[in-house]
Amino acid sequence: MAGEGGDGEAGDAAMISLQECRELDAADPLAPLRERFERSSTGAIYLDGNSVGPMPREVPERLQRLLREGWVDARRRGWSRFDWLERAHSLGADLAPLIGAGANDVVFADSTTVNVFKLLAHAWRARCESRPLIVAERYSFPSDLYAAQGLAHLLQGRAELRFIDAPEQLAQALDARVGVVLLSHVDYRSSRRWDMAATNAMAHAVGARVLWDLSHSAGAVHIALQDHGADYAVGCGYKYLCGGPGAPAWLYVHPTLQGEGWPVLAGWMGHAHTFDFAPEYEPGAGMHRHLSGTPPVIAHEALAAAASIWRHTDAKALGRKHHCLLRTVLALLKPWGQAQGLRLLSPAEPEACGGHVALGHEGAGAIVEALVEAGVVCSFRQPDAIRFGLSPLALSHEDLWWAMQRLQQVLLSGVWREPRFARVAV
Amino acid sequence: MAGEGGDGEAGDAAMISLQECRELDAADPLAPLRERFERSSTGAIYLDGNSVGPMPREVPERLQRLLREGWVDARRRGWSRFDWLERAHSLGADLAPLIGAGANDVVFADSTTVNVFKLLAHAWRARCESRPLIVAERYSFPSDLYAAQGLAHLLQGRAELRFIDAPEQLAQALDARVGVVLLSHVDYRSSRRWDMAATNAMAHAVGARVLWDLSHSAGAVHIALQDHGADYAVGCGYKYLCGGPGAPAWLYVHPTLQGEGWPVLAGWMGHAHTFDFAPEYEPGAGMHRHLSGTPPVIAHEALAAAASIWRHTDAKALGRKHHCLLRTVLALLKPWGQAQGLRLLSPAEPEACGGHVALGHEGAGAIVEALVEAGVVCSFRQPDAIRFGLSPLALSHEDLWWAMQRLQQVLLSGVWREPRFARVAV
Repeated sequence: MAGEGGDGEAGDAAMISLQECRELDAADPLAPLRERFERSSTGAIYLDGNSVGPMPREVPERLQRLLREGWVDARRRGWSRFDWLERAHSLGADLAPLIGAGANDVVFADSTTVNVFKLLAHAWRARCESRPLIVAERYSFPSDLYAAQGLAHLLQGRAELRFIDAPEQLAQALDARVGVVLLSHVDYRSSRRWDMAATNAMAHAVGARVLWDLSHSAGAVHIALQDHGADYAVGCGYKYLCGGPGAPAWLYVHPTLQGEGWPVLAGWMGHAHTFDFAPEYEPGAGMHRHLSGTPPVIAHEALAAAASIWRHTDAKALGRKHHCLLRTVLALLKPWGQAQGLRLLSPAEPEACGGHVALGHEGAGAIVEALVEAGVVCSFRQPDAIRFGLSPLALSHEDLWWAMQRLQQVLLSGVWREPRFARVAV
Repeated sequence: MAGEGGDGEAGDAAMISLQECRELDAADPLAPLRERFERSSTGAIYLDGNSVGPMPREVPERLQRLLREGWVDARRRGWSRFDWLERAHSLGADLAPLIGAGANDVVFADSTTVNVFKLLAHAWRARCESRPLIVAERYSFPSDLYAAQGLAHLLQGRAELRFIDAPEQLAQALDARVGVVLLSHVDYRSSRRWDMAATNAMAHAVGARVLWDLSHSAGAVHIALQDHGADYAVGCGYKYLCGGPGAPAWLYVHPTLQGEGWPVLAGWMGHAHTFDFAPEYEPGAGMHRHLSGTPPVIAHEALAAAASIWRHTDAKALGRKHHCLLRTVLALLKPWGQAQGLRLLSPAEPEACGGHVALGHEGAGAIVEALVEAGVVCSFRQPDAIRFGLSPLALSHEDLWWAMQRLQQVLLSGVWREPRFARVAV
């Protein structure tokens, strides 16, 4: 296979047998985590962790207990009897090691879009007098761009948006008027991943800051927010982090920037003394001020099951396993992929690749439908991409062997050309 | 009893027997709804619907089904297989009749605080050139005031906040520079309720608009948003609406104002064509644009159980039952309340009263603790208020008879003076 991401002959990609996949699993320190997730009753293999991650087995029991002991029996006293009010912080502390952050530097709250708005506005506000410009990439995840456009609209010309069309244009777009750069760490289509350390350094060199959206990388690849000099980051809870459909999102602010001014979305949960019910806002210390409304107790309980898995996961081991999963997919495709019309759209170099592999094929939409029927759940993106999310927490190398086997069968048999698969998957 | 809210001799308050309470229940068209809620295993009576409403019985089964069929089996395909994407609208349509709104004029999203920010900014933005002033009451629910302060802070002097200290000062605070008035429909301490129709008319007379927070009234008293000329409203989902601890909140915009300009918190769920993934934001029609991030699927499923109860509830019958519950409490307290040191802090006139009754007593904090031990869950607010939430969906008149009986016992026995109750309830 050859693709824009790299040369198919490069790297460790080589043919690989089922037996070799099993040997990789036997040597994998994260292999036991896979058993902490519930398996589908259909026996399907799920390569869609980039959309909705798998359910930790303990979720149903946790929720049942919350409903009975919390909602039915405690009701309002749940706020003092349980840790409902502290969860935003404790879930953040559980996530912190997985993204290279300090335990006090991450909180869970709101949705990714709302958090982009909050931190973008906060970053802009800090130095807008001399640096009114926000730089963003036109092919970032669209909702992030909408949040930036909504902010600029509210500020009626005081905040300016400058778009770049490709990563290579960033250096040229940076100047002394840029306050903050908004970037999706991983391109949700191609899986191209920014070099976080180098990009932060480039922005800092001109005095700008960077806000990263890590939705397509946190929980999938090695991330070192503090070591790589990140100023701000947000990410969703329901993809590789396995927090459940529509789970709350998280936000990170570098320790030196957390106390800088008021949050834009001030609320009682971020007040220095919430239960004084004072009419005047007073920002809480550190990340606390970046909370606003009442925490989503039920959704947090589901997330807590995933958090008990994050806590036991070494971030570097996670990164190494992702490399190994990626190399395994490429090696499995190598003998026949190109002949069947597949092109690698995502980077072949693991350090440049996000959580998922993207393969191009003219029949991508129908192939995804046929694969789902064959028991491999993956996703399609316009115009021609098949995406396989590689979750180091939930997948084995053997899973990938079977999945690529089924992909080969779908392509060799031509079943995907049948009219029933012609509808385009969302 | 006598209090600031009215004369204890006024209205229909009169002594009332257990038998009469049972007769009121027999004649109550909403009585069957009470059986749709789960009862505590302790047999306690919950008068805290103003904090966390009771759990609809069907919640556990709904959530189990969602976890199995949605999260485990469907994963990302849940977005197309189920109604996850439409829930924000369908839950709003279920709530609409209960608050006197059109079916397309309400959506569920985010938290109450975030929604206050969104609609306050939207309302301000619409006419800020000539009307930069926001008027708010200093004793509104504090988080709403914080949201307004955070907005003013972001806008750096372009939005001005003008506080009033009491409802009587509103008329004087309104002038041609006021764009929007932010009010808590019900005072969370005293339960004093604004006259919504008269207040809207007063604001409209000077060209201002009103944003109402209905957290302490929706699901408890009769509300007629459209008939009473409301411009904007928000409210929480976890109090009288029984959506579960930290449930998503809702927002309403008058049909003529929904399409007015961009939302402030623009996001992919409010885009006119979400799945085009276009880089440019284009606001969706009507209330759709007021959605922003990915919907909280699990929390919405819990809310859907409550929504199946709202759908079967006539708004006017709800208001009549609340009147009857309030009169019942006052009648039950009449023979002995004043002698035991209780003062009515909330309005005695049902039309002027919000969801809860507030009673003043120097030992309020300890009395609430003793009542909880005696099987009546209620709440305390500084400095001296005992609050009983009167939920027309979940309470019978007989519940109130037993609750007031236990209150009388706590006061007559003096048990609340024991040191173990001295800690102050949150």
